[in-house]
Amino acid sequence: MSVTEQQTVKKFLNNPEDTVPESLAGLGAAHPDLVKIDLENQVVLRKDAPVQGKVSIISGGGSGHEPLHGGFVGVGMLDAACAGTVFTSPVPDQMLAATKAVDGGAGVIHVVKNYTGDVMNFKLAAEEAADEDIQVESVITNDDVAVEDSLYTAGRRGTGATVLLEKIAGAKAEAGGSLAEVAAVARKVNDQARSFGVALTSCATPGSGPTFDIGADEMEFGVGIHGEPGRRREKIRSASEIVAEMADVILTDLEPASGSNVLAFVNGLGGTPLIELYVIYNELTKQLEERGLTATRSLVGNYITSLEMAGVSITILTLDDELTELWDAPVHTPALRWKA
Amino acid sequence: MSVTEQQTVKKFLNNPEDTVPESLAGLGAAHPDLVKIDLENQVVLRKDAPVQGKVSIISGGGSGHEPLHGGFVGVGMLDAACAGTVFTSPVPDQMLAATKAVDGGAGVIHVVKNYTGDVMNFKLAAEEAADEDIQVESVITNDDVAVEDSLYTAGRRGTGATVLLEKIAGAKAEAGGSLAEVAAVARKVNDQARSFGVALTSCATPGSGPTFDIGADEMEFGVGIHGEPGRRREKIRSASEIVAEMADVILTDLEPASGSNVLAFVNGLGGTPLIELYVIYNELTKQLEERGLTATRSLVGNYITSLEMAGVSITILTLDDELTELWDAPVHTPALRWKA
Repeated sequence: MSVTEQQTVKKFLNNPEDTVPESLAGLGAAHPDLVKIDLENQVVLRKDAPVQGKVSIISGGGSGHEPLHGGFVGVGMLDAACAGTVFTSPVPDQMLAATKAVDGGAGVIHVVKNYTGDVMNFKLAAEEAADEDIQVESVITNDDVAVEDSLYTAGRRGTGATVLLEKIAGAKAEAGGSLAEVAAVARKVNDQARSFGVALTSCATPGSGPTFDIGADEMEFGVGIHGEPGRRREKIRSASEIVAEMADVILTDLEPASGSNVLAFVNGLGGTPLIELYVIYNELTKQLEERGLTATRSLVGNYITSLEMAGVSITILTLDDELTELWDAPVHTPALRWKA
Repeated sequence: MSVTEQQTVKKFLNNPEDTVPESLAGLGAAHPDLVKIDLENQVVLRKDAPVQGKVSIISGGGSGHEPLHGGFVGVGMLDAACAGTVFTSPVPDQMLAATKAVDGGAGVIHVVKNYTGDVMNFKLAAEEAADEDIQVESVITNDDVAVEDSLYTAGRRGTGATVLLEKIAGAKAEAGGSLAEVAAVARKVNDQARSFGVALTSCATPGSGPTFDIGADEMEFGVGIHGEPGRRREKIRSASEIVAEMADVILTDLEPASGSNVLAFVNGLGGTPLIELYVIYNELTKQLEERGLTATRSLVGNYITSLEMAGVSITILTLDDELTELWDAPVHTPALRWKA
C-alpha cells in the first residue's frame, strides 16, 4: 500500500483507519504508570480505576484534538476518556463502558463538549448507566463565543474551557467532593470562561485532504476546532491587533469585574510554534492589564488542537479562591502535570 | 505596517525582529514563579538564581527550537538559557552575562549543541568567564547520526540528546554534584544517546519564506533542526517503515547491549500532531522489543523543534541505574515538570 495514494497532506501513518487505535496504544505504552488502554472500546483509563469512593470524571469526543482528552487521564483530572474516530463523536457503547469501568460508587461526571453528536451520545449513555444504577451528572461546555450555532452545534461550541474544567473538577473529585459538588464547580468553570479561536491554515484528517481552503494571506476569525467557519475571513493582521479583538470579544461576553484575577489560556491549535504562542501571551497579559485584569494563572501550549492547524485560541477564566486553589492542586497526567 | 508584506508563511507576529524578545517576555509573564527574564541580554534565568553552592547549568542557541532552551529553565534543569535570533547563535556577551548571573561559586556547565557558531561563541564566553575566576566546564552534544558534517556543523549535529542531558545533568546539580560530577554525567548522556530526524515540510523564519522546498509526496530523511539536508530526499513511506529505518540507523551506531533498558524520546519538530507522535511511539516500542530492548522511560511531544516544521526525531538513550534515577528526579520548568 502506498501511503501517498491515500492522503494529500503528508502524515506519519500506517493505514489511516488504524490511526486512532495505534495512537492510543502508543499513549498507553509511553505512560504505563498513569493510564491503561481498553483498545476494544477505544477508552483511556486511569491506571488504578475504579477508585472506590471517589467521584469519577469521564470525557470524550472525536479524535484529532490531542492531548484532549486521553492525555488528561490520570491523578487529579480525568478517570477515563472515550476516543471517537477523528472529528467524529464516540458512540454510546464506548461512553457506557467507560462509565462502568470508572464508577467507584460515588457517581460519574460526564464532561461533554457542546457538539450535537457528543451531546446525543452522552445522553444515551447516561440513561443506560442510570438503568444500571450508576449516578451520572452531565456537564456541558459551551464557552466559544465566536458564533451562536455552527456546523455540528446548536448554541455555542465547547472548546478551551473544557481543559480548565477537567483540571479543576478533577481536583475537586480528588479532594473528596460529592457528585453534586464536583458538578457544581465544573459548571462554575464553564460559566466563568469564554474562548475565541483564529486559524491561519486548515488541517486534514488522516486519509483525506484539507478541511477547508484559505488564502495565503488570510485568517479565519472565530474558527472552530474542526475548522468550522467563524465570524469572517479576512487578511491576517499583527499579533497585537488580533489579540485586541479576540480579548474584546471574549471580555464583552464574560464581563469580569474590573480588578478580577483571571486564568489566561493561550492554546495552540497544533501547527503554530511555541515562540508565537508566547508572543500572543505577552500581548494578552498587557491588554488584560490595560482593562484592569490580572492574569494570576496561565496555561500556554497545545492542549486542545485541530490536528496540524496553524492557529491559536484564547480562553479567559475568571478566578476566585476556590478555582485558584483547585487549579494549583497536584495533577499527574501525560499532558498536564505539576506538584502543589 | 502590513504583516503580510513581510512574510510568505503566515505567523502571529508584530515586527518580525521583535519576535524573540516579545516571546521571552511572554515566557516570563506566564511563569513568574519559575523564571525571570533579562531582556537586555535575551537570557532566561531561574527565578532564584544564583543558587549559592550549587553547580549551575546554562545553555543557549538560536531561537526557533522552543521550548528548548528557555522552557527548560527552572528547578532541576537549567539555571539559564541564552536566546539568539531565530536559527542564529547567541553572542559571547549573552553567554558571559548568563554565566555570571547564575554562578553560585561551585562552577558553571555550558551545554553546547555542536553547531559552529554556538561552539565558537561559547568557547569565547568560557575564556572570558575564566578571566573573571568562574570555573566553566563545556559539554558538547553531537548525537545526530544522520550526517557527518553538515550545513553549520563540523562533525555530527547536536539535537534531541540535549533535552535529555539538560534534565539529567540538572538533577545531578540539584542533588549537590560537583562540577566534575555534573560534567561527567552530562557527557555520559551524550555518549549513550543517538538521534535521527525526518521532515515532511519545511519551516520559515519570521519575516522570510520557507527554508527549503519539498514535494507534496516527499520526506527529507535525516533532516537537521534548521532544515539542513539529511541523507536523501525520497517518497514518504508508512510510519512503520520510517521508524524501522530510523531505529536501524540509530541502533547500528549506538550498539546497546541486548537486554538494555532505554529511554525512547519521540520528538515533534513543531507541526506534527500529537496523534501521529504516539503512532510513531507505538511503532518504536514494538521495534525496540523485537531487538531485545525495553523502553522503560519515555518522552513524547514537541521539545526541540524547528518552528512549524512537520517532522519527527527519535532519540534513544541507553539507561543505567544512575541515569534512570536522575531522569526520575523532580523537575519544575515551564515545559517539563514532574514530581518524583
